[in-house]
Amino acid sequence: MPDLLITSPANPRLKQVIALRTRRGRTASGLTCVEGRDELALALGAGVLPRTLFHCAELMAPGGGSVVDDVRTRGAETVALGRAAFEKVAYREGPDGFLAVVASPGIALGDLEVAAGGLILIAQAIEKPGNLGAMLRTADAAGVAAVIAADPVTDWGNPNVIRASKGTVFSVPVASADTATTLTWLAERRYVLVATTPATELLHTQAELTGSIAVAVGAEKWGLDAAMLAAATIRVRIPMAGRADSLNAATSAAIVLYEAIRQRG
Amino acid sequence: MPDLLITSPANPRLKQVIALRTRRGRTASGLTCVEGRDELALALGAGVLPRTLFHCAELMAPGGGSVVDDVRTRGAETVALGRAAFEKVAYREGPDGFLAVVASPGIALGDLEVAAGGLILIAQAIEKPGNLGAMLRTADAAGVAAVIAADPVTDWGNPNVIRASKGTVFSVPVASADTATTLTWLAERRYVLVATTPATELLHTQAELTGSIAVAVGAEKWGLDAAMLAAATIRVRIPMAGRADSLNAATSAAIVLYEAIRQRG
Repeated sequence: MPDLLITSPANPRLKQVIALRTRRGRTASGLTCVEGRDELALALGAGVLPRTLFHCAELMAPGGGSVVDDVRTRGAETVALGRAAFEKVAYREGPDGFLAVVASPGIALGDLEVAAGGLILIAQAIEKPGNLGAMLRTADAAGVAAVIAADPVTDWGNPNVIRASKGTVFSVPVASADTATTLTWLAERRYVLVATTPATELLHTQAELTGSIAVAVGAEKWGLDAAMLAAATIRVRIPMAGRADSLNAATSAAIVLYEAIRQRG
Repeated sequence: MPDLLITSPANPRLKQVIALRTRRGRTASGLTCVEGRDELALALGAGVLPRTLFHCAELMAPGGGSVVDDVRTRGAETVALGRAAFEKVAYREGPDGFLAVVASPGIALGDLEVAAGGLILIAQAIEKPGNLGAMLRTADAAGVAAVIAADPVTDWGNPNVIRASKGTVFSVPVASADTATTLTWLAERRYVLVATTPATELLHTQAELTGSIAVAVGAEKWGLDAAMLAAATIRVRIPMAGRADSLNAATSAAIVLYEAIRQRG
């Protein structure tokens, strides 16, 4: 049976997809979009089964049809779109004929389970999707147990987070909660909170970063808030020689996480 | 004496500015642009004296006039533009009335002087301006002696490098050369070349990174080329637990540079 074909840009199914461009639309539906063949491949590689794959043969590079067949075989709904219809739902310039609707990544913190002795990254109020995505790539490489967005400004399903994460947002356990809930959750599990801040003398290399450790990095402009700093068992700074105010938030996370990895040998 | 006022978008002086958007235009003139009040402040803070500051009162936030006065007092030419003229030269959306023409950062490698015992970063064929900018921020924070672009794909004067670097492209010594010239330059100064590559067993934390060290990171897609890998005295890898192919190039640079900083204590 051939796929359903939608040619009208006014089709109501397309409106549902367009609604996923806003955080409100993603939160309401629990869904988000993965656009582009490369990004789809990364999500599939991370074990994602799309709800629906919208595809447009006219926009595809050679070999695209077999990708559609593969996704259909995995059990996803596949819907063919005419060019005008596809261009209506695509959010990228120069769309390549692939747009998958998938369950938005991220779970409530209460549903997150981590073993004792793990390494967790807390990203507080990070604004830029590119920074969250970069942190996820690093977290994946470092083998962290989870990344928790505290007081999230950007949702895990933000298409730019997905893109910047190179698919790792689907493979690293990610959760969200407000800061108070995050602190309680960590305390209940006896995780030691390590806050990164310029306002301390202890270098990150001088702190003991083995055992159950949660490394917290703060918002690009303001760093960690008072509640997070006050709750931290250890406050560390990364030595800085230069004149710039601070390292990028994702870079700071990488430096401290990899120091923890070194200490864990 | 009031500033020269240009109102016509067809004025030839504006064409000279627009030419700086291309690498060819920057290379031919040795100039580039710094757009926006915040970015200008970062460049001024790094000691840059603009050749010319184009400003547009109509587009400025309050207090902008005193910034113009300050730049004029430092000795730069200041030129007032009408709104249509400014919008013609601005490359950002939502221009804020400031665009400075400055000497493009970066020197020829032959003119770069570094003391023995320093830490150098080699960025080979990095494509993304955002990655070069991120490396500069990290290099500034880590206090590296210089950053050398080997076989550069992107020039140091690229406006997106300048922006991503948060002004550090003007404060960190930066140079460019082809890879063969870079290798000769390092050897003549007895700098030990440390290549980062997944294709080795030695971890970056297991290598001796004190003394005269040049850490090399390669292009986003391909890593370091065969010439750089063959010339390296030490090849190190960053341990990776996850399923993503690799860390971001700028993140890799940060992790290895900060391990060197740790060892140098």
